[in-house]
Amino acid sequence: MFQLFVLILFAKIAAIVFEMIRLPPVIGEIIVGIIIGNTFLFDFLELGTNIEVLSVLAELGVIFLLFSIGLETPFSELKKVGGTAILVAVLGVVFPFIFGYLLIAYSGYPQIEALFIGAAMTATSVGITARVIKDMNLMNSIESKVIIGAAVIDDILGLVVLAMVSGIASGGALDIVNTVIVAALAVLFVVAVVFVGSGMLPKFRKHTPDFKTLPRPLSLRRKISPLAVALIVCFGLSAMASYVGLAAIVGAFLAGMVFAEFKDIFNVEEQFGAINEFLVPFFFLYIGISVNLSTFGGIAVLALIISFVAIATKFIGCGIGAYRLGAKSAAIVGIGMAPRGEVGLIIASVGLSIGSISNDMFSVVVFMSLLTTLVAPPLLTYAFGRKTGRMAKF
Amino acid sequence: MFQLFVLILFAKIAAIVFEMIRLPPVIGEIIVGIIIGNTFLFDFLELGTNIEVLSVLAELGVIFLLFSIGLETPFSELKKVGGTAILVAVLGVVFPFIFGYLLIAYSGYPQIEALFIGAAMTATSVGITARVIKDMNLMNSIESKVIIGAAVIDDILGLVVLAMVSGIASGGALDIVNTVIVAALAVLFVVAVVFVGSGMLPKFRKHTPDFKTLPRPLSLRRKISPLAVALIVCFGLSAMASYVGLAAIVGAFLAGMVFAEFKDIFNVEEQFGAINEFLVPFFFLYIGISVNLSTFGGIAVLALIISFVAIATKFIGCGIGAYRLGAKSAAIVGIGMAPRGEVGLIIASVGLSIGSISNDMFSVVVFMSLLTTLVAPPLLTYAFGRKTGRMAKF
Repeated sequence: MFQLFVLILFAKIAAIVFEMIRLPPVIGEIIVGIIIGNTFLFDFLELGTNIEVLSVLAELGVIFLLFSIGLETPFSELKKVGGTAILVAVLGVVFPFIFGYLLIAYSGYPQIEALFIGAAMTATSVGITARVIKDMNLMNSIESKVIIGAAVIDDILGLVVLAMVSGIASGGALDIVNTVIVAALAVLFVVAVVFVGSGMLPKFRKHTPDFKTLPRPLSLRRKISPLAVALIVCFGLSAMASYVGLAAIVGAFLAGMVFAEFKDIFNVEEQFGAINEFLVPFFFLYIGISVNLSTFGGIAVLALIISFVAIATKFIGCGIGAYRLGAKSAAIVGIGMAPRGEVGLIIASVGLSIGSISNDMFSVVVFMSLLTTLVAPPLLTYAFGRKTGRMAKF
Repeated sequence: MFQLFVLILFAKIAAIVFEMIRLPPVIGEIIVGIIIGNTFLFDFLELGTNIEVLSVLAELGVIFLLFSIGLETPFSELKKVGGTAILVAVLGVVFPFIFGYLLIAYSGYPQIEALFIGAAMTATSVGITARVIKDMNLMNSIESKVIIGAAVIDDILGLVVLAMVSGIASGGALDIVNTVIVAALAVLFVVAVVFVGSGMLPKFRKHTPDFKTLPRPLSLRRKISPLAVALIVCFGLSAMASYVGLAAIVGAFLAGMVFAEFKDIFNVEEQFGAINEFLVPFFFLYIGISVNLSTFGGIAVLALIISFVAIATKFIGCGIGAYRLGAKSAAIVGIGMAPRGEVGLIIASVGLSIGSISNDMFSVVVFMSLLTTLVAPPLLTYAFGRKTGRMAKF
C-alpha cells in the first residue's frame, strides 16, 4: 500500500509539473517511471517483488485507456472524414512500417522483432496532436480536421497491424499462409465487431420504440447502470480478442467504438475518465520502469536513427497523402502526424510481454515515442504560424 | 483477462438481479463469491494461482469504498446530529462488542479472535439502512434521522475499535499498558486528522481570499485535477495509518471525511463512484470466495447464535439509547441499526489477513452479516408500518 502511494504521488506530481510547463503529462509519467526503474527507488519501493501487482494495474490501465480512445472514435464520425484523411492515414502507416521493418531487419535483428518495431512506428498519438491543435485554437482549420481524422484511423490501422504481427508471433513460423490466415482473422474480428456493434445495433435501435416508454417489466434498462454494461462489454470483447489470438486491448478499443454510438443512452465517458485517471498512470510508469538505462549507451545511436526515420517517414507518407491541400498544408499535416504515443508503446509492450522484442529494443521504442512527441509541438507551432501568420500561443 | 471478465460479469449480473428483487446488490456479490469459491468455478477460473491479483483489486476496492463512506460523513454534519444519535451509536457499539466478545471468549476461542468478532459486530451498515428508509420515503422522520446519524457515528466507532483491536493483535501480548497505548495512538491519529482536516482547514479557508481570484502564478489549483489531489490524500493517509499500525482503510475513511468538507472546490464524489463501481465488487467477491462451505456444517450453530446475539444486542443497546423517543420509536431505531455490512466484513477480513481469526470464524462473520442484512428490511418495514399506519411499499 505504501509503495502504491509513492507511485501515485510521483506520477501525479510529474503530470502536474509537465502540464504546467505545457508538455504532455504522459511524458512526465514515463520519465518518472524511468527514474524509478533505474535508481535506488526501485529497491526502496521493493518493486522486484511487487512488479506483478504493478503489471496487473498497468494492464487494466491500458484496457481502460483503449476503451476511452475507442469511445472518442464513433464509426459514424469516421465515415465523414473523407478521402484525404484516409489517404494520409494509410500512407502514414505504410511508410513507417516498411522503412522501420527494413531498417531493423537489415541491421541483423530477427524478423519478428523488426515487424514489431515497424508496427510500433505506425500509430500517431491522437491525444498529443489534438492537444497541440486545441492549445493553438485551430480546431476548425482544414489541416486540423485531416490530422485528427487520420490520427483516429491510424489508431485503428495500428491495432490491426498489431493484431497481425502478434498473431504471426504466436504462430511461430513466418510463412505466408499463416500470415494471411492471421491477418484475415484479425481483420474479420475487427470488421465483425464494427459491423454489428457500430453498424447494425444503432439501426436496430431506430426501429424499436424508445426504451423509456416500454412497459415496466421491460424497462429493466433503468435498473442497470451504464457503467456496469460498459465494463461487461469492454472486458467481454477483450476476452474474446484474447481468445481469437489478438491483443486484449484491440477488443477494448472496439468496445469503446461500439459504445461511442450509444453515447445518448449509455454515457460513460466521465466515469471512464475517472477510472482512467487512477489506473492509466500505472501503465506509463510501468513503461518507464521497463526501460533499462544501463545498457542504453549501446543502443543510443539506433534509438536516434529510429526516431529520425519515424519522423521522416510520417512526414513523407502523410505529406504525400495531403498534397492536394497544397505544400504548406501538407507540411503541417506531415508534422502533426509525427507524435507516437500510447498505441506505439502498447504495441511495443505487447511485443516485450510475449518475448518477441528485447528489453533494449523496447527502450528504443520508448525513446522514439518520447522524442517524436517532444519535437512535434514546437515544429507544428512554427508550421502553423508560417501559414497563418498568427503568433503562436504555444 | 478472461478470469477477470467472468468475475465482473457474474458480479454485475448478481448485483442487477438482487437490485430487481429489492435486496442490497452487495449480498448478491457476496453470494456469487461464495458460489465461485466453493464449486468447480474456483478451479475453472484458476483462482488458486490468480488469487493474489484478486486480493490486490479487493484491497484497492475497500480503500476506495471507505473513502467514499467518509465522503458522505462531513464532520460538520455529525456535530448537528445531537445527543440521541450519539447515545444510540455508543450503546449500539458497546453492547454487541461486549456480548460478542464474551460469547466467543467463553466458548473457548482465543482472546484475540473474540476481540475481532466483537469488533466485527459493532458497525451498522449505513448503506443498507439508508436504502430501506429511502425506499419507504421516510427520510424525514425523527427515527430515520437518528438511525442515519447513529449509523454514521457507528462506522467511526467501528473503525476506532478496529484500530484498537488490530493494534493489540500486532502487539502480540494482551497486557493493559499495551492496549492503552495502542488505543491512545489510534484515537490520537483519528482525532488529529479530524481536528486538522475537518476542523482547522475549513476555517483557514474562510480567512483566505477565494482561490479563483488569486493572481495567475498562484492559481495552480486550476491546473490540478481534484481527483489527483483526492487520490494523493487518500493513499497518503492510508499509508500513514499503516505506518502507525492502524488499518490502511482507517486512513482512507478519514481522508474521505476531510474531503467531505471541501465538496465545493474538490467535488470527487461522482468520480470515486465510478472507480468504486469497478473495484468494490472485487472486495465482496473476495469476501465470498474466502468463505469455506465445506466446514460450515460444524459452525452453523455458532453462526446462528452469533447472528441472534448481533441482532439482540443492537436492538437492546440502541433501543435504550433511543428510549426517550418512546417505545415504538425506540423499537424502530433498534431494528434499523441491525444490518451489519461493509465495515463488519472489513474488520473480519483484516483479522483474517493477519491470522488473528480462523477461516471458519470468518465464515461466521460473513453469515452474520448476510443474515442481519436480510432480516432488517422486512422487520423495519413492519415496525414503521405499525407506527405510522402507512402501507409499506417495500
